Amino acid sequence: MIRVVVDPGCPTGVPETVKGLRGLDVVLAPDRDAVAAELAAGAEVLVTSYWRDDFLTPSLRWVAGNGAGTDQYPLEDFSRNGIELTTAHGVHASCVAEHAFALLLGVTRGIGQSVRNSEAHRWSPMTVDELCGKKMAIIGLGRIGEEVARRAIAWGMEVAGLKRTPETYKGCVPVVRGPGALHELCSWADILMITAPATNETRGLIGAEEFALLGAGWLVNVGRGPLVDSDALLVALRDGELRGAGIDVTDPEPLPQDSPLWDCPDLIITPHIGGDSPNFAPRWAQIFEHNLVAYAGLADWRNRLEHAASEVSA
Amino acid sequence: MIRVVVDPGCPTGVPETVKGLRGLDVVLAPDRDAVAAELAAGAEVLVTSYWRDDFLTPSLRWVAGNGAGTDQYPLEDFSRNGIELTTAHGVHASCVAEHAFALLLGVTRGIGQSVRNSEAHRWSPMTVDELCGKKMAIIGLGRIGEEVARRAIAWGMEVAGLKRTPETYKGCVPVVRGPGALHELCSWADILMITAPATNETRGLIGAEEFALLGAGWLVNVGRGPLVDSDALLVALRDGELRGAGIDVTDPEPLPQDSPLWDCPDLIITPHIGGDSPNFAPRWAQIFEHNLVAYAGLADWRNRLEHAASEVSA
Repeated sequence: MIRVVVDPGCPTGVPETVKGLRGLDVVLAPDRDAVAAELAAGAEVLVTSYWRDDFLTPSLRWVAGNGAGTDQYPLEDFSRNGIELTTAHGVHASCVAEHAFALLLGVTRGIGQSVRNSEAHRWSPMTVDELCGKKMAIIGLGRIGEEVARRAIAWGMEVAGLKRTPETYKGCVPVVRGPGALHELCSWADILMITAPATNETRGLIGAEEFALLGAGWLVNVGRGPLVDSDALLVALRDGELRGAGIDVTDPEPLPQDSPLWDCPDLIITPHIGGDSPNFAPRWAQIFEHNLVAYAGLADWRNRLEHAASEVSA
Repeated sequence: MIRVVVDPGCPTGVPETVKGLRGLDVVLAPDRDAVAAELAAGAEVLVTSYWRDDFLTPSLRWVAGNGAGTDQYPLEDFSRNGIELTTAHGVHASCVAEHAFALLLGVTRGIGQSVRNSEAHRWSPMTVDELCGKKMAIIGLGRIGEEVARRAIAWGMEVAGLKRTPETYKGCVPVVRGPGALHELCSWADILMITAPATNETRGLIGAEEFALLGAGWLVNVGRGPLVDSDALLVALRDGELRGAGIDVTDPEPLPQDSPLWDCPDLIITPHIGGDSPNFAPRWAQIFEHNLVAYAGLADWRNRLEHAASEVSA
């Protein structure tokens, strides 16, 4: 029997789903020390989106990730020890795209301000705006970026995208550029939509210069916190032209209680819930069950690192 | 020269646009008494979405409305006095549809709760949900309902609609029923989307029974406040199964400061701004300019009451 340990931070439904599969010896760890203990005691498979150094044990053979990104994992150690890493790449795409629009409409349609006004029982109309006809630059055309693009185009927006390898792009976005076109896209766009993963090249991608080029527009970040310079965001909202921003990811996470970002009236912050959906567990389980067959050497892997890394990148 | 008076409550850009038209003697009234005074002094055309009884004067010939609805006007008096009424029917549709999704995503993706948490500097993930695959019943398939339907279908939702005259429907919704099917649609739906106008038949349309049939779903109202029974909404949110609601219209408006609705955590209230957009004035002006030609007897009217009433109704 394959010994599987499930991290306590897995999305709703995932632990129950794994526990219900036949032919596995599954432990739902109550905390991270229990995860490490199970791995030290011979568990081969770890279901998680979280990583801690003491999870690396001689028995670990496969990390079945619940997230789209891989930046939290020690990839070189995995490679050196022959540990397979699979991701939930693509599983979140539709859901995160909806979340991106929830944040965007939250700022363009005055939802954030209205909720703050409601706390004071205040009926106070404000000036709002319309997405139809606006220009959206999607930074990172992986599966999430593509789902955002499909929705934006259906809603009458103009869309352009940025991708590390534009020549490999096969999707619905009519204009796709390489990383060198970032500033051109910032100048062109009304809305900067960040859907890129965190890599060494994308850290601090959006800073003071990019906000200056964007001007009186909006920013949404559903990619990773470190892609946007928090100080530059604060300045752009407080003293600059930026009309509003919605972020599901921060740097660091959780956002510290004393961060001045909490008090920006034109900023909506959600606590990294973009991928959360009751549909996640059944969709993820399809990949996991397929990969159990791959783990037994009887099928090709799905969403194994090499494949995932090339597709999700900008 | 045609004497035109513009009510002070007109949407952004409308007064300036009317003032800028040639061949008109335009007064931008600073308050409602000034509107009444201008009309008493011989103005023929009133640009407004507001009505007060003393606006009815012998000189008034045409009310050029800025709203989609007509429930605020004394239609029998207009008819008796030969006063034309035109509306902004269709002008708001794209914008209100976006607002409907802003409210809907605001509750399904935890935006309301996150903004309330931000006030307390609190990073606190909550369970959220996904629209893709959900069933939406659109109550009122006029232009706004149609624009909501187009967007919902493009996002992978199942859509059905209710219309007073389903046999006249020519749009994208695959299943369209008459008023008798309201309860059937409430049982079927995950989301009740109210886009119908206020009429004698629609007052209190959604009450305790309808919320019970909807069950653990969501409600959005961008139609008119009186369509939804406020007490029943409160009970459904507090003690019932309703998972959340977003309303841009209330009964009465503004919502009184002591309304218990302000304090519902799963309710988002916006102050009747669904139609607000910088695109409104130029779109509305196209109709107004066309109707100036109609007023001179040289063209057919656009959005004149009879036509508008039949199209916007459920």
